[in-house]
Amino acid sequence: MSLAEQVLEGNIRAAARLMRDIDDDRPQVIDELKRLYPHTGSAYIIGITGPPGAGKSTLVDQLTASFRNQGKKVGVVAIDPTSPFTGGAILGDRIRMNRHSCDEGVFIRSLATRGALGGLSRSTSDVALVMDALGMDIIIIETVGVGQDEVDIVKEAHTTCVVMVPGLGDDIQAIKAGILEIGDIFVVNKADREGADRTARELSNMLDMRRAVEGKWNPRVMKTEAQRGTGIEDLTNEILAHRAFFLSSGTINEFLRERNQRHFMGILRDTLFKKALLFMADNNLCIRVETDMNNHRIDPYSAVEKIISKMMQDSADRV
Amino acid sequence: MSLAEQVLEGNIRAAARLMRDIDDDRPQVIDELKRLYPHTGSAYIIGITGPPGAGKSTLVDQLTASFRNQGKKVGVVAIDPTSPFTGGAILGDRIRMNRHSCDEGVFIRSLATRGALGGLSRSTSDVALVMDALGMDIIIIETVGVGQDEVDIVKEAHTTCVVMVPGLGDDIQAIKAGILEIGDIFVVNKADREGADRTARELSNMLDMRRAVEGKWNPRVMKTEAQRGTGIEDLTNEILAHRAFFLSSGTINEFLRERNQRHFMGILRDTLFKKALLFMADNNLCIRVETDMNNHRIDPYSAVEKIISKMMQDSADRV
Repeated sequence: MSLAEQVLEGNIRAAARLMRDIDDDRPQVIDELKRLYPHTGSAYIIGITGPPGAGKSTLVDQLTASFRNQGKKVGVVAIDPTSPFTGGAILGDRIRMNRHSCDEGVFIRSLATRGALGGLSRSTSDVALVMDALGMDIIIIETVGVGQDEVDIVKEAHTTCVVMVPGLGDDIQAIKAGILEIGDIFVVNKADREGADRTARELSNMLDMRRAVEGKWNPRVMKTEAQRGTGIEDLTNEILAHRAFFLSSGTINEFLRERNQRHFMGILRDTLFKKALLFMADNNLCIRVETDMNNHRIDPYSAVEKIISKMMQDSADRV
Repeated sequence: MSLAEQVLEGNIRAAARLMRDIDDDRPQVIDELKRLYPHTGSAYIIGITGPPGAGKSTLVDQLTASFRNQGKKVGVVAIDPTSPFTGGAILGDRIRMNRHSCDEGVFIRSLATRGALGGLSRSTSDVALVMDALGMDIIIIETVGVGQDEVDIVKEAHTTCVVMVPGLGDDIQAIKAGILEIGDIFVVNKADREGADRTARELSNMLDMRRAVEGKWNPRVMKTEAQRGTGIEDLTNEILAHRAFFLSSGTINEFLRERNQRHFMGILRDTLFKKALLFMADNNLCIRVETDMNNHRIDPYSAVEKIISKMMQDSADRV
């Protein structure tokens, strides 16, 4: 039985195996994903993003518990970017997620590397696809919102929660540019801290400045203390409210169109690149190209043109 | 006269024009870069990276002045990542660079977008190539070290300075994983602040734990107050010391090999992808593929395979 068939029967070990294969960028993965594809689309994807130290992991842990109480199966994809400036701290957080580790209705997967090809957002969407096929009702993608990579990842989510904390001070002003665009719900976590009300008010004011558009979702600012579980029920309800809006307003259709296009482009780019690398390896071209460049006999632009024209010639010869 | 020829004559406006064309991802750029390529390789590239708020822009400004005093021409590539969490603050910093704006020996270029294709590190290396061809002796690449994208950019530099500030507290522990790998020189800026000595000591200790390897460069920790210009001369001298080591030890050969390979791979990937997009546009395939995916008639993996085999067939037919 293929891994895909086992995953569709709910086999968790097969799912874990397939995810490892995705990590390792094995060629057979494509066929497995193709088999899974028609059986996906029913999971609801929630993105949780925000700066380091905002308490995202604890919040994800609480949301997981909350959805479990509603009888939902929950998948968690936790992105640990290998950034030199944030890596350590985030990996530390991960340890806290352990309380769900014996629950068969919870599947947690950390993605730390960007994979050999295609980057973190490709791996994330592939892993989410497997969780979807495995029968997870809710998939939570947690990422540190510091770079473009992470913003791309958040695009995979139906509902995106941006998590802030009081006391980041001037940063609130600094981040105003892009942050408002990506959040469907804003969360001020660690709401017991001094300045929480001010942070929430400032966020609300910024959101108010964008005039409410008829028929569009108006993001709200929620307050939570994830450590103590305060505000989690309200947040869960707000997520469900956004979901109801998302499904009923037709936003979902636009979302799916954009997602299809993004996935297609990503896969196209990676597949072509892999084909070229394989062609070079098969024809012992790697070392020759390298030597020519290192000896200044050719510049990289011309070297690429040469390889591509050889590739095209070769595929013509085969026909 | 081609833009490339004008750039090689030192025409600053032609260089600015070519950089705009790089930003706009115009097809004729490749030919211009090919023409420039044989005339490059003499500029020395310095990377400055570190977390937001470390005072990198001020430091770059001071280093620029320092190298100008030595009669060197200086190009600055300032990366403004479009991250929603850092964007605003960094663009604000940029305004301080103005004091060199009337100096013909200084060429400053901000890169804010990641470009249509190929990402920020491709644009950065192309822009650095133009500055090199224009006759800049020193090229400083300034970037916020928060993501993998930025780490990739730093790889373009011969000497990388990692800038830290006192008072980031626990972060020092958190960042230890990757940061030590990428820095040739560590700078504790805002050294008048409380805790500067501790931060410098902690960094030194971490560096000491990596046993000194015979024949390898041993990074030092420098202290600066960029606002007041303190420590800049020492830092400049340390950069020149690393440069001397870099050139005499043979490290440069390994560096150039890796850079050639990285550039080749990046260009190969982008060029193939562009070719595919062009092929789809020329054959009116875009809408058909999109419609099929949106109607669930095909999954993105199979759609990509179909397009690639059409492409190969087409190139065979032409021969």
